Amino acid sequence: MCGIVGYIGSRSAQQVLLSGLARLEYRGYDSAGVAIMDGEQIQVRKKAGKLANLSGELLALPLSGTLGIGHTRWATHGLPNDTNAHPHATEDGRLVIIHNGIIENYLTLKEGLMARGHVFLSQTDSEVLAHLIEEKYDLVNGNLYEAVRQALSEVRGAYGIVVTHALHREIVAARTVSPLVMGVGEGEMFLASDVPALLPYTRRMVFLHDGDMVVLSDDGFRVTDLAGNAVARTVEQIDWDAEAAEKGGYDTYMLKEIYEQPVALTNTLIGRLHDETGEVNLDIDLDPSSFKRISIIACGTAYYAGLVGEYLIEQLARIPVEVDVASEYRYRDPLVSKDTLAIVISQSGETIDTLEALREAKRGGARTLGIINAKGSSMTRELDDTLYIHAGPEIGVASTKAYTSMVGAMLMLALWLARARGTLTQEAGKELLHAARALPRLVEEALEPARVERIKAVAEKYAHSRDYLFLGRGVNAPTALEGALKLKEISYIHAEGYAAGEMKHGPIALIDAALPVVVVATESRLLEKTISNVQEVRARGGQVILLLSDGDTENAQHADEVLYVPRSHEMVSPVVNVVALQLLSYFTAAHLGRDVDKPRNLAKSVTVE
Amino acid sequence: MCGIVGYIGSRSAQQVLLSGLARLEYRGYDSAGVAIMDGEQIQVRKKAGKLANLSGELLALPLSGTLGIGHTRWATHGLPNDTNAHPHATEDGRLVIIHNGIIENYLTLKEGLMARGHVFLSQTDSEVLAHLIEEKYDLVNGNLYEAVRQALSEVRGAYGIVVTHALHREIVAARTVSPLVMGVGEGEMFLASDVPALLPYTRRMVFLHDGDMVVLSDDGFRVTDLAGNAVARTVEQIDWDAEAAEKGGYDTYMLKEIYEQPVALTNTLIGRLHDETGEVNLDIDLDPSSFKRISIIACGTAYYAGLVGEYLIEQLARIPVEVDVASEYRYRDPLVSKDTLAIVISQSGETIDTLEALREAKRGGARTLGIINAKGSSMTRELDDTLYIHAGPEIGVASTKAYTSMVGAMLMLALWLARARGTLTQEAGKELLHAARALPRLVEEALEPARVERIKAVAEKYAHSRDYLFLGRGVNAPTALEGALKLKEISYIHAEGYAAGEMKHGPIALIDAALPVVVVATESRLLEKTISNVQEVRARGGQVILLLSDGDTENAQHADEVLYVPRSHEMVSPVVNVVALQLLSYFTAAHLGRDVDKPRNLAKSVTVE
Repeated sequence: MCGIVGYIGSRSAQQVLLSGLARLEYRGYDSAGVAIMDGEQIQVRKKAGKLANLSGELLALPLSGTLGIGHTRWATHGLPNDTNAHPHATEDGRLVIIHNGIIENYLTLKEGLMARGHVFLSQTDSEVLAHLIEEKYDLVNGNLYEAVRQALSEVRGAYGIVVTHALHREIVAARTVSPLVMGVGEGEMFLASDVPALLPYTRRMVFLHDGDMVVLSDDGFRVTDLAGNAVARTVEQIDWDAEAAEKGGYDTYMLKEIYEQPVALTNTLIGRLHDETGEVNLDIDLDPSSFKRISIIACGTAYYAGLVGEYLIEQLARIPVEVDVASEYRYRDPLVSKDTLAIVISQSGETIDTLEALREAKRGGARTLGIINAKGSSMTRELDDTLYIHAGPEIGVASTKAYTSMVGAMLMLALWLARARGTLTQEAGKELLHAARALPRLVEEALEPARVERIKAVAEKYAHSRDYLFLGRGVNAPTALEGALKLKEISYIHAEGYAAGEMKHGPIALIDAALPVVVVATESRLLEKTISNVQEVRARGGQVILLLSDGDTENAQHADEVLYVPRSHEMVSPVVNVVALQLLSYFTAAHLGRDVDKPRNLAKSVTVE
Repeated sequence: MCGIVGYIGSRSAQQVLLSGLARLEYRGYDSAGVAIMDGEQIQVRKKAGKLANLSGELLALPLSGTLGIGHTRWATHGLPNDTNAHPHATEDGRLVIIHNGIIENYLTLKEGLMARGHVFLSQTDSEVLAHLIEEKYDLVNGNLYEAVRQALSEVRGAYGIVVTHALHREIVAARTVSPLVMGVGEGEMFLASDVPALLPYTRRMVFLHDGDMVVLSDDGFRVTDLAGNAVARTVEQIDWDAEAAEKGGYDTYMLKEIYEQPVALTNTLIGRLHDETGEVNLDIDLDPSSFKRISIIACGTAYYAGLVGEYLIEQLARIPVEVDVASEYRYRDPLVSKDTLAIVISQSGETIDTLEALREAKRGGARTLGIINAKGSSMTRELDDTLYIHAGPEIGVASTKAYTSMVGAMLMLALWLARARGTLTQEAGKELLHAARALPRLVEEALEPARVERIKAVAEKYAHSRDYLFLGRGVNAPTALEGALKLKEISYIHAEGYAAGEMKHGPIALIDAALPVVVVATESRLLEKTISNVQEVRARGGQVILLLSDGDTENAQHADEVLYVPRSHEMVSPVVNVVALQLLSYFTAAHLGRDVDKPRNLAKSVTVE
């Protein structure tokens, strides 16, 4: 979730790069750097901290040159210091790269490169790309494009990569998962991870697709796939203003972030799953046998991610888990000791109740682990270990991609604990790992236009309902709670979530013909029980909106409206299922004319009690 | 919560007693008995099981006589067998008593009586009364009234007691806590624990007050206090029909049960608290050091009682507690072992989800304890230990007195565990025990007419609201949840409860001028925090209804409406505070013309999944 800018043309590259990076500032960063071709040399400048640190230095001692690449970093591997900042150059300084994303097999690649004499300067996974391309460059007789292409064929992971070489007046770039967009000028070309960086210069844009490679020169560009075949990409005329550009062409940040979920999830999972062993590498110091109970603490949406986590950890790793609302936990003199692992979950890492609860847990002697999105946030400075979700900046107040990424992180944590503690066989581990790997694809399927249109129609049909009920069982009981919270937050309709089996102990009294009841009834060993609850609702005249797995035509008869969602392994299904509920809330709120990104009374990061 | 009938006059006593007992049948029982004066002998007949067992025997072999007393029993001390059934007679068979309630100091009394040569036939606490009165009878030269009065001066506990003696054509009765009503006829007198038993014979009734003693003879009655001073009680003309009589003159069972809470709580607590040692006697076999974690399992209202229990047990006894909704617990392959104490909570003892969850816990090796109202119910037959709440039959579908009694039972359990495990000093134990003892009185204060009128006015003011929010913190967070559930159940208004600190993480978006927000803001170390949340609501135009402790005029400024509740120790305050919320729901539903006792879609005892 870093920012990239590239330029080739006749302007001052430094100026284009710094203004572009400044426009990506809203995404947050922890270091920045540029590489600018000055004659036959590439000059690299990079600094930890805010962009201002770098621009201050460059204003004092400017780099001349009209070809360059720049980067703002949101650290994934390695500390956010000067050395780990991008760009990364080879030893001879001739080849320079910038990379967004995560290289899953970087350790294997690095070992091979070191064995062949390459010296590494940084702790980043990205640096292996520089060395690997350098090696290929010699093999293909100095064809930079071909060197990059062959190097990428050995790489597994997600990337937006940008490469320059002192001997070539061109920029080579490629993307898988991580986004890249080109700006087309007159005698100049631009490249960026996001549209806003380019708006001051051109409105003619080419959105690169997954698996695209591109070579930019002063007078144009050519696109191929990773196999080297030419690919046609149309130039689009963008009429977005700056704000629309930040929203990536979507009406709202929230909708953009809903659509970003496949990428966000990829970034959450990537580099952490080992297909061969069915194991997970979380890159944390935690000893999985050092505690006897787990206490999960969070607020709002993160609390519901915690409830999914409780289910997964108890099921897979057989450790007792308790989940607490942070504002309650911090004042109830909680039972905590050296035997306790306290897990806090927070997108911002700044939520004051959660932060104070973390401190309370530490005072009690707990080992602490955070599931956090924002690097360098207050919590991360106080946690023993942090498992970053890498969902990227979330601007919409109602959390979407952070939620699914938190659940993804919880899934990995549960798998890691289960494998380490021997409660899950390698076979079962592999199966679940496989199911987890499928998540970005399944969420992408959940966002297919036909499904989205259907959800929109249902949302609009019931948009004027007075209230709403959401039901689910087992691992999808929290999905119902999260679905209700989302609707409440952005549409102001009083939605409430319940474990489906609990409905008859009270909320069933609410049911009449005016009440839509959304039931998560996807493939599950509890499906039959859930359908019984559905029939209880129907028998009392309630309007039933059923979330069913693709192909379940049998249970469609019990619904007034069916929303089909992609079939997924039950243990990972909360991630897939919630997407439909996010969209349902979104279109309800949009239809009612609500300010979706900034719902009344709510703040994104709650730093007051 | 047994039934009592007494008769003196010219009719067949057997007939009056059996018809009266039959009219108390709705209260449930497990044995029945009568004592009828036949010439100068008193004949006693008693049978375990339903009343039909006894009446069958009596129809085959009738007892003649025109003075008698009868009883249906809901066992508290001792098994429900023939021996333990009432009436209880002395060895010579001349003195016969019936007793409702619990004698707290019966063990001390029994030891003394045995030392002085009395032989006990049953395991009941009640039998000591027979022997004690017999002893006094000789001391006061055969004055039955005076013998009863002096005996009662040594008794601590709750009772409705009815006494006959072979040498006296009179019935002596007295009450403390347990109710008694007299029916006044022409040349005949009736006595019963409840009005319905007397309706076929007379509508002229005298409701005895706490501490009243009465002597009934063929031609009238006289009432005194326990010190022997004459007391005037008016004869009231009752125009209730049978159904109204069962409702004790209240419009609904629910309202009757709300008002029964001081008695129900007394019965829950009585005989279990030891003022001198600050300890609790629960009369269960459970070894308080035999488990390391507690799992509480329940549905609906009982689930919220479990949440209060979690708070109390963790705070006082420092044992980790998890609370689960039964329908979720039973299907989630729960973590349970020999180290686990599983506590199920159920009014009926028949709730199918809870029963199945209990079985699941047993399969996992857990020790099991039930907090149950209904004797002999399915759960009690499968539990290792049962802690009866003794709240008496609850007819209204929306639970009221069962809830407060469940919380009372949880409080005692927490105290018991804490004292046994040494986490609570004797001093602190005494303080809490004192606070618990105050509960019946405080709940009675909470039901004072002026408060009830005020709640009614507020309820009616907001009765047409679309929805409602209930907030509370700490031990009163579940009070908010229960308040919301109650309103939802009987008024069909969509009410939702939240931990107050969690409001800003979502539900705050719902707040506008049309939304009443009820906040439990009684005396607490968290009061200031709660008031901050109140201000967040006010700042957004929400209507605030504050529950404040008596005398808190300072915080009244933050409310649109204030409901004052009696001041109580924070740890016991959920019992006192919830009463105001029960009444708020009640008057809202009544104003909207709802069928309060039988809300749509709901069943009293949920025996389907």
